[in-house]
Amino acid sequence: MNIKEFGGEFKLIERVTREGGAVVGVGDDAAVLEFDIEKYQLITCDMLCEGDHFRRNWSTPKQIGMKCMEVNVSDIAAMGGEPTYAVVSISLTDDVTVEFMDGLYEGMYSVADKYGFGIIGGDTTHSKTLTINVTMLGFVAKKNLCMRNGAEVGDLICVTGDLGGSMAGLQLKLNGVDGFLQNHLEPKSRLMESKKIREYAKSMIDVSDGLASEVNHICKQSNVGAIIFGEKVPLSKNTIETAKKLGENPLEYALNGGEDFELIFTVDEKDFSMLNLGCDVSVIGKIVEFAEGSKIKIDGAIKPLAGGYDHFKKNLSS
Amino acid sequence: MNIKEFGGEFKLIERVTREGGAVVGVGDDAAVLEFDIEKYQLITCDMLCEGDHFRRNWSTPKQIGMKCMEVNVSDIAAMGGEPTYAVVSISLTDDVTVEFMDGLYEGMYSVADKYGFGIIGGDTTHSKTLTINVTMLGFVAKKNLCMRNGAEVGDLICVTGDLGGSMAGLQLKLNGVDGFLQNHLEPKSRLMESKKIREYAKSMIDVSDGLASEVNHICKQSNVGAIIFGEKVPLSKNTIETAKKLGENPLEYALNGGEDFELIFTVDEKDFSMLNLGCDVSVIGKIVEFAEGSKIKIDGAIKPLAGGYDHFKKNLSS
Repeated sequence: MNIKEFGGEFKLIERVTREGGAVVGVGDDAAVLEFDIEKYQLITCDMLCEGDHFRRNWSTPKQIGMKCMEVNVSDIAAMGGEPTYAVVSISLTDDVTVEFMDGLYEGMYSVADKYGFGIIGGDTTHSKTLTINVTMLGFVAKKNLCMRNGAEVGDLICVTGDLGGSMAGLQLKLNGVDGFLQNHLEPKSRLMESKKIREYAKSMIDVSDGLASEVNHICKQSNVGAIIFGEKVPLSKNTIETAKKLGENPLEYALNGGEDFELIFTVDEKDFSMLNLGCDVSVIGKIVEFAEGSKIKIDGAIKPLAGGYDHFKKNLSS
Repeated sequence: MNIKEFGGEFKLIERVTREGGAVVGVGDDAAVLEFDIEKYQLITCDMLCEGDHFRRNWSTPKQIGMKCMEVNVSDIAAMGGEPTYAVVSISLTDDVTVEFMDGLYEGMYSVADKYGFGIIGGDTTHSKTLTINVTMLGFVAKKNLCMRNGAEVGDLICVTGDLGGSMAGLQLKLNGVDGFLQNHLEPKSRLMESKKIREYAKSMIDVSDGLASEVNHICKQSNVGAIIFGEKVPLSKNTIETAKKLGENPLEYALNGGEDFELIFTVDEKDFSMLNLGCDVSVIGKIVEFAEGSKIKIDGAIKPLAGGYDHFKKNLSS
């Protein structure tokens, strides 16, 4: 049976997953390992493949290198942690140049320098598809660990910054239309903001696959439901303009578009006023009883909160 | 400039490498991180790409899964350590089936169970080339750490088991000739043996890219030279038979063939008799002064020790 018929990547992950002895294994943004009395160690990895995750004629080598690192930093941030080290596996095609590699590593080191982690090893090999895998280690103080499973009924659902910007840029590129590409080509993690959020958040996740998918992950792991208020979902002027240009709905970009790397988190209502992040934070919904499921209210109508980016349904090369 | 003109993967790695804050970073089998008073943490990764590192019509899914793990265990073993956890990134092509994934994970878990480590997370995505990256963590007691840089003049150069078997199997497959494929399809690391070797070894490396390449890594990092005695290089009956069948030289398989995953190590002459590994160990040469370079003596003639498997020169699909 092919993966798409079977139900996509998330069902597949469930099928092959087994208990591995970690404090937290598969099913959160990073795996959590015992380290010492005060700290856990975090480990996460992301694989970026040419055609599916980037294109050399869309991004500079430096932008590709930056993205490889930011996606992993985002996973560490979503756990309330901080990155320490990264290892890089890369399979090069015959047409990759030394100049490309210089730019790629310039991008990777620029992110490492910004956040203060080291790139300490890896594997360099050959393939028919340019593929870059980064595995990142980090630490989190035990008291700061933010998982997907801590949301409780009554929590506010919050999000940093705005959503859909990366998908908007991707749609411009796919349609060959000019416009704002920054969010797609140079996504940034929210590591700095996470250092403040983690003091109050009861659950947290980063936006890799779209708001709908991420909120559903929190609901599933916390055994709760959620109601999202469509009009509260933050959309930038650029994202709205792009959608207008292409005759699409910008809210769909936010719900189904991947790689915004904003943080979605839930907090107790009384704690919301304590957040002082230095970036926009929007309350986009509320955690409700499990039996109510996850829903979104748009223009007065309530619909199931479905969707999210699935790599088996869409990719850059299709 | 393309990578081949520039000088291949090892020159490229040197070019992009920077200090990353690890105890040992790029340039050994695994990176070494401070853990506690007694232990270091090890981290290593290997990327296997369809066409270059395996073929689905040559190997069963289970064999591919086993290989993904054994190559990493071998790196941990080469440092004198033991594996603790692995994370798996995998990019699937449209034609990968659920049954393939079941077999792949069956293979990966069988190795995890054999050595007692956990598979605790990863990334599943889509690509045009089936690619599997495993990152493995491990521990090594500080007193057991074996690096490439500890060889000293007068040390014996030793190797476990026999060499060239994986390359022999690859040549059979490439030529469509029947024969012994076990070493190519199901390579095994020498984790158990490394637990004994590490007590005496002054330097150690695993055979990923062929004897010539590995001995040269030890020489370079230890600032020494080496003389290898060609007739002492251990070759199995199967490897000799395969070479005969194909009209090739089995010693070339050993020198230039990758993925044998035997351990090459150097020991003080007085310690050799202390080794009691439960597997064959051959003394294949001696560490000499740096100025003498690395050489091999074959049939009385002394030649430079050159070669090794380079993914930019050969691959399964070429």
